[in-house]
Amino acid sequence: MSEIQRFGESARWSEVVIYRGEARWVEVADDATADVRSQIAQVLTQINVTLDRISSSRTGLLQLLIFLIDLKDSTMMNELWDEWVPTTGHLQIRACVEAKLAPGYLVEMVISAAVPG
Amino acid sequence: MSEIQRFGESARWSEVVIYRGEARWVEVADDATADVRSQIAQVLTQINVTLDRISSSRTGLLQLLIFLIDLKDSTMMNELWDEWVPTTGHLQIRACVEAKLAPGYLVEMVISAAVPG
Amino acid sequence: MSEIQRFGESARWSEVVIYRGEARWVEVADDATADVRSQIAQVLTQINVTLDRISSSRTGLLQLLIFLIDLKDSTMMNELWDEWVPTTGHLQIRACVEAKLAPGYLVEMVISAAVPG
Repeated sequence: MSEIQRFGESARWSEVVIYRGEARWVEVADDATADVRSQIAQVLTQINVTLDRISSSRTGLLQLLIFLIDLKDSTMMNELWDEWVPTTGHLQIRACVEAKLAPGYLVEMVISAAVPG
Repeated sequence: MSEIQRFGESARWSEVVIYRGEARWVEVADDATADVRSQIAQVLTQINVTLDRISSSRTGLLQLLIFLIDLKDSTMMNELWDEWVPTTGHLQIRACVEAKLAPGYLVEMVISAAVPG
Repeated sequence: MSEIQRFGESARWSEVVIYRGEARWVEVADDATADVRSQIAQVLTQINVTLDRISSSRTGLLQLLIFLIDLKDSTMMNELWDEWVPTTGHLQIRACVEAKLAPGYLVEMVISAAVPG
């Protein structure tokens, strides 16, 4: 299965796995001491960075599964989202539910995106 | 990445994204004022409607990730499920966990299905 | 859509669905009366068994979505994980969140893996 590409391996996981034209990855805020607005903004920015790294873009996004530790933050998330989201014609599907996360983390996103080629 | 098809775009997401023969979408009840039995029944019916729309069918279902706000409702969900589920030989995988959802919603499902062609 | 392969069908789901080179399945412990350490160990072992069954291996793992009923168990999970995890160069992506599960179950994993051919 040499056709699998993996980026950013640590001891427990890869940051990104690409298989058959689809990249998958998980984002949490690089700075988990920040407040929820900052953590959400960080995660959205980090998604852009990862999309660049895999030669994709926000127009290639397929699916986001979002975990918030408090759904009351979803209004604020949507404000940040609306500034970040791809232009019409390129929107992904999105599910957002509440779940406890590892200590410090206030948001976690599981992302799928198409990669060219 | 013109090979991505998207249906039912709103400002924040698409209702369905199709890529490389796989459709993905998220369903919550159209009428979120209804009780949980009705919401589950609505979601299952809505899945059928979406499958029709993308020229697939229940025999093409690959995966369902189900979020219930109260797992005590899973017995009832399974009653509705058993009436709805595809015939033997075409069953999807299924995970079902408890999670808080956006206000009013009592069930949310993330679906993957194969599409022909 | 004859290209979909399904293994281990019960009345409500398949144990494994394979489509376009990707297997997906859900694991919970076969013995749900066991404690959390045993349940996590069981699930990891069961993943190996399933990988064998579908002619894949741990090097084909793409994605794991892990639900624990208590994130305090994640330290212990990581100990078991570190013994189990594939060798460097073959690591999957991983998300882990807390969620209530069906009675008795302390861990549930949703898995994707590449299959040859």
